Amino acid sequence: MTIVLGDNQYGKAETHLVRVTRDGETHSIKDVNVSITLAGEFDASHTAGDNSKIVPTDTQKNTVFAFAKEVPVGEIEEFALRLARHFAGEFAAVHRARVSIEEYPWDRIDVGGRPHPHSFLRAGAEKRLTTVTCMKERAWVVSGLSDLVLLKSTGSEFWGYPKDRFTTLEETRDRVLATAVVARWRYGRLDVDWAAAFADARTALIEAFASKHSLALQQTLYDMGSAALESRSEIAEIRLSLPNKHHFVVDLSPFGLENRSEVFHAADRPYGLIEGTVTRDDAPEPGLAW
Amino acid sequence: MTIVLGDNQYGKAETHLVRVTRDGETHSIKDVNVSITLAGEFDASHTAGDNSKIVPTDTQKNTVFAFAKEVPVGEIEEFALRLARHFAGEFAAVHRARVSIEEYPWDRIDVGGRPHPHSFLRAGAEKRLTTVTCMKERAWVVSGLSDLVLLKSTGSEFWGYPKDRFTTLEETRDRVLATAVVARWRYGRLDVDWAAAFADARTALIEAFASKHSLALQQTLYDMGSAALESRSEIAEIRLSLPNKHHFVVDLSPFGLENRSEVFHAADRPYGLIEGTVTRDDAPEPGLAW
Amino acid sequence: MTIVLGDNQYGKAETHLVRVTRDGETHSIKDVNVSITLAGEFDASHTAGDNSKIVPTDTQKNTVFAFAKEVPVGEIEEFALRLARHFAGEFAAVHRARVSIEEYPWDRIDVGGRPHPHSFLRAGAEKRLTTVTCMKERAWVVSGLSDLVLLKSTGSEFWGYPKDRFTTLEETRDRVLATAVVARWRYGRLDVDWAAAFADARTALIEAFASKHSLALQQTLYDMGSAALESRSEIAEIRLSLPNKHHFVVDLSPFGLENRSEVFHAADRPYGLIEGTVTRDDAPEPGLAW
Amino acid sequence: MTIVLGDNQYGKAETHLVRVTRDGETHSIKDVNVSITLAGEFDASHTAGDNSKIVPTDTQKNTVFAFAKEVPVGEIEEFALRLARHFAGEFAAVHRARVSIEEYPWDRIDVGGRPHPHSFLRAGAEKRLTTVTCMKERAWVVSGLSDLVLLKSTGSEFWGYPKDRFTTLEETRDRVLATAVVARWRYGRLDVDWAAAFADARTALIEAFASKHSLALQQTLYDMGSAALESRSEIAEIRLSLPNKHHFVVDLSPFGLENRSEVFHAADRPYGLIEGTVTRDDAPEPGLAW
Repeated sequence: MTIVLGDNQYGKAETHLVRVTRDGETHSIKDVNVSITLAGEFDASHTAGDNSKIVPTDTQKNTVFAFAKEVPVGEIEEFALRLARHFAGEFAAVHRARVSIEEYPWDRIDVGGRPHPHSFLRAGAEKRLTTVTCMKERAWVVSGLSDLVLLKSTGSEFWGYPKDRFTTLEETRDRVLATAVVARWRYGRLDVDWAAAFADARTALIEAFASKHSLALQQTLYDMGSAALESRSEIAEIRLSLPNKHHFVVDLSPFGLENRSEVFHAADRPYGLIEGTVTRDDAPEPGLAW
Repeated sequence: MTIVLGDNQYGKAETHLVRVTRDGETHSIKDVNVSITLAGEFDASHTAGDNSKIVPTDTQKNTVFAFAKEVPVGEIEEFALRLARHFAGEFAAVHRARVSIEEYPWDRIDVGGRPHPHSFLRAGAEKRLTTVTCMKERAWVVSGLSDLVLLKSTGSEFWGYPKDRFTTLEETRDRVLATAVVARWRYGRLDVDWAAAFADARTALIEAFASKHSLALQQTLYDMGSAALESRSEIAEIRLSLPNKHHFVVDLSPFGLENRSEVFHAADRPYGLIEGTVTRDDAPEPGLAW
Repeated sequence: MTIVLGDNQYGKAETHLVRVTRDGETHSIKDVNVSITLAGEFDASHTAGDNSKIVPTDTQKNTVFAFAKEVPVGEIEEFALRLARHFAGEFAAVHRARVSIEEYPWDRIDVGGRPHPHSFLRAGAEKRLTTVTCMKERAWVVSGLSDLVLLKSTGSEFWGYPKDRFTTLEETRDRVLATAVVARWRYGRLDVDWAAAFADARTALIEAFASKHSLALQQTLYDMGSAALESRSEIAEIRLSLPNKHHFVVDLSPFGLENRSEVFHAADRPYGLIEGTVTRDDAPEPGLAW
Repeated sequence: MTIVLGDNQYGKAETHLVRVTRDGETHSIKDVNVSITLAGEFDASHTAGDNSKIVPTDTQKNTVFAFAKEVPVGEIEEFALRLARHFAGEFAAVHRARVSIEEYPWDRIDVGGRPHPHSFLRAGAEKRLTTVTCMKERAWVVSGLSDLVLLKSTGSEFWGYPKDRFTTLEETRDRVLATAVVARWRYGRLDVDWAAAFADARTALIEAFASKHSLALQQTLYDMGSAALESRSEIAEIRLSLPNKHHFVVDLSPFGLENRSEVFHAADRPYGLIEGTVTRDDAPEPGLAW
C-alpha cells in the first residue's frame, strides 16, 4: 500500500471588490465577491513543499483588483471569464481555473423623485451568481441566484403519499408554500447576452412559482426549471435546491378560535429540502462546468 | 453583606408569526417576529422557585398567535400595543410589559405584468422595528429599522482630525461612505399614523444620507436624525447606530495602474461605529420607552 | 422647537489581534477582539463637520496594535485598562473611553502526550469578556463570559404558574434545562487578580447550574448569580441573561412507543429569555460601569 | 428538443435530536443534527404531482425520533446506518438513502472535583460528522469533523513561488499558520470501531498539523491526510478543506516599534482555501460514498 495525492485545488476565496464607474457626475457601482480555485500540477507542493508552480493566492487577489481597474467589471460572467482565462492561459501548470462570483444588487436612491448621481441602497438579500471554469482551450459558464425567498399563501396541496407506521402528517388541499431558491443553470454556449439571460431566467422562475398550482414542491421545482429552460434557448440545464420552509397552521382550538389557514408559525428547523435537475434532452455535455 | 435580587425581566423571544388575510381571492401577508419581556413582582420565583406570578413564556407565545387570529396584525405598533396592554393589564404582578417586533417586508409578485393574488417575494434584508412598553396606565412607542445598507461613491470627506504618534491615516477629500443603518425613534404621542410616519422617517433618512455632503459620518448621522425629526412632528427623538463600512482604495501602483477612486476593497473588520441621538429640545420625557 | 444633539459616542469596533509571546522555544498566544468607544466634546463634528477633536478610529486601531507590542496583552482587563486610560488621559476632549474585549480561548496541542511549544487548538465557542470604562480620574471594570452552553437532563421542574385562557403548557416535575449563559459582573475595585477572579466566578456559575435543583430558570439564575458573588468578594454585582433553550419531549405514542424523557427535539425559536441582576446590598455605586 | 428531469433527491434536513440515556442516577446525552436525502423513482411527483412514492419528510423526521427511542443512538455511524438501511430497505421506490449527522460534543460537569450525574457543558464548536449512503444491498460510510481550529505560531514558511506582474507578496521563512479543518474520510469497510477510529484519525490530524514543519499549507494538508490514513487501516481516503486564515504581521515601524512576529492582525476575508484528497493506491472504489 502506498499513500498518494488525489484531486486537489486551491485559490483565494472571497475577495470583496466594489468597482465605481464614473460617467461625468453619474456614478454606477458593482459589488462582487470573487473566489478563485486553480487545479493542475501542484503535486510537488503537497509532497515536497516545492512551491515553484503555486501562483500565490495573494497574487490572485491582486489580479482581481487590477483587472477591475483595466476594464470595468461588466456582467459578472464576463469578469469571471477574463479572470479564469488569465489563470488558465498564463500559467502552464494550471490546467483548470474556476472563478465564482456573487454579486450584491444595489438600487440608485431617489431624492425628491429624481435619481441621485452617486448614492445607492442595497436592494435586498438576493444574490446573482456565476461560476466560470476554463481549461487551456475551453470554457464553461454556470450562472444562477440564491436567497430568492418566495411564498404563496394558497394554491399548494400535499396528499396521496405512502403511509407507514411513522406517518402522522395529515393530507392537505391547502397549505402555505415557501422556499428560498438556489438556482444554478449551465449555458450551452458562450455568446450570450448575460444580463438579459439572467433577467429572463429569474423572471421565469418567479412567475412559474407564483402561477402554477402545486401538488408537491417537486412539481413546483420541475415547473420552475422548465420555465427557465423555455425562457432562454442558451440554457442547457438548471439545478434547483428548494428548502421547504414549513409554515404550520397554529392550533387555536384550545382558545375557542378557528384557524382557517390564517395564523402560521414559521418554523426554522427541521425543513424539507428538495433538489433536482431539469435539462434539455439534447443538451451539450457538461464537461467541467460543475 | 446580603445578596439581593436586582432588576429582572423575562419573556418569550422570537415567536415567528405569519398572518394571512384574505380579501376574496386576494391575500395579503404579515411576517413578524415577536419578542416579549415582562417585569414586575417576580422575586419569589428567583428566591424560592415560587412561580405563582410567572405567566409562562409558552402562554405568551400562544397569546401572540391567538391575538393575530382575533384581529389581523395591522401595523406592528398596533399589534405590539395590543399585546403589551394585555400583559400589563391582565396580570397584577406585571408592572411593565415590553413587546418588540421585527417585520420582514414582502412584495407581491407580478406575473405577466399583473399583481398575483397570493404569491409574494421577500423584499430584502431590511427590517421594520418597533418596541412598545406598557405600564398599567401608560404606553410608549419606539419604532425604527435595521439592515438598511447605504453607500455613496463620492461626496464624503474626512480631514482636520488630531494627529498623535499612532496616526497614519491620510486625510481625504473624496471617499466612499457606506453604512448599515440601525435607527430607532421614539414617538412623543400615541395617535400616530404608524405606516405613514414610518414611511416618511425612512425616506427622510435615506434622502439625507444621499443628498447632504459629508465631512464626517457624525455629520451625516446628525443630518439624518434631523431630517427624520423634521419629517414627522410626532417623532420626539431618534437614535442612530451607523457602522462605517470601510471601502479602501486599493493601491494599484505596483502594477503600473492608477486607481482614481475606482477600485475598492470592501473590508469586514475592524469597522468604525458612530452612535448618536438627535432630539427636540422640547421632547417629552422618555419614561420607560427605551 | 429646536433640534439638538443628544448622547453620542464613536470608536473602532472589532480589531482582531493575535499576540504571540516567545519564551525561548515556547510560545504562548492571546487572541482578542477589541472594540473602543469614546464620548466627549464631539458636537462640532456632528453639527459642522469639524473633526478637530475626533481621534480617528484608524488611530484607535493602530494604538491597539502598538500597545500590544510595547507590553504583552496580559489579562484582558489589564489591556483594556491600559487602552482606556490612554484615550481618556491623552485627549482632553475625550470624557469617557470604553474598551470592550472578547477573548477566544486556545489550548496547547499535545503531541505524543507532550505539550507542543508553538501549536494550539481553539478551545471552544465560549468567550471571556471585559468592558472597561475610564474617565479622567476614575475607572470601572466589568468582566464576564458568553456562549457557555449548559444542560441538565433532570433536576428541573416547572409548575404552580397562573393559568389563563391562553395557557396550554402542562406542568412538569422533570424536564431538560438548557441555556447559553451570558454573564457580566462588575468589580467593586481595581486591585483584583483578574485571572483567578474569572476562573472562580466561572466555576461558581457552572457548579451552581449543575448542583442546585431548579424549580424555575429564574431560581437557577439567582443561584448562579449568588454563587458568583460568594466566590469572589471583589464582585459587586452580576447580570445574567439565560435563554431557555427548549428541549421538547417528542410524542412517540402514535408509534406505540413511550417516551420517558429520553427523546427530545431541541428547538431553536421561540425561546424563553430570563434576565436578572444579583447584587450585594452594600455594593458601591455602579457609576458609568455599564 | 424535450425538457426532461435529471438527477433529483429530497429529504428532511436538520432534525435536531437530543437523546438522554439513564444508567441509574447517571445520565449520558447524545446531541445530533440529522439530515436525510432519498433518491429513486420520484419522476411522477415532479412531472405530475403524483406523490404515491414520496415518503413525506415529516415521516422521515418521526422515524429519527422513533429510532432514537427504540435503541439509544450509539455512535453516529451506527445510527445513520440504521436509518439509511431502513429507508433504502422499506421503500421499493427509494434507490439510495443518505443520512448525514453532525454531533455536538458535551463534557460532563465536575462539581467540587466529582463528575455530576446529569449536568453537562458544551465542549466547543468542533463537530463530529458522518454521511452514510445505502442502496438496497450496499452501504458506504464517510466520517469526519469540522470547525477544528488550529494555529501554529512558527514552523511555517512560504517561498519559491512564481512571480508575475501582479505579485507583491514577500517570501517568508516564518509565519503564523492557522486553519479551520474540515476533514471527511471514507472507510473501506463497515466493521469498524467507529469511536476509536474517529479518535485516532482526529489525533493524527492534529498531531501532524502541530509537529510537521510546513513549507506550504498544501504540504501540511498532505501530511495531515497521510497521518490519518496511517492511523487506521480502515480509512481508504480522506478529503481535507483547509482555509488559510491569514494572520498579517502589523507594520509598527511608523510608531518606532519593531514587530518581530509578535503582533498580528487576524483577517477575515479574503482567505486562501486549500483542498485536497489523500488516498491509498489500493483503496476500494468509492461507489456512491460521496
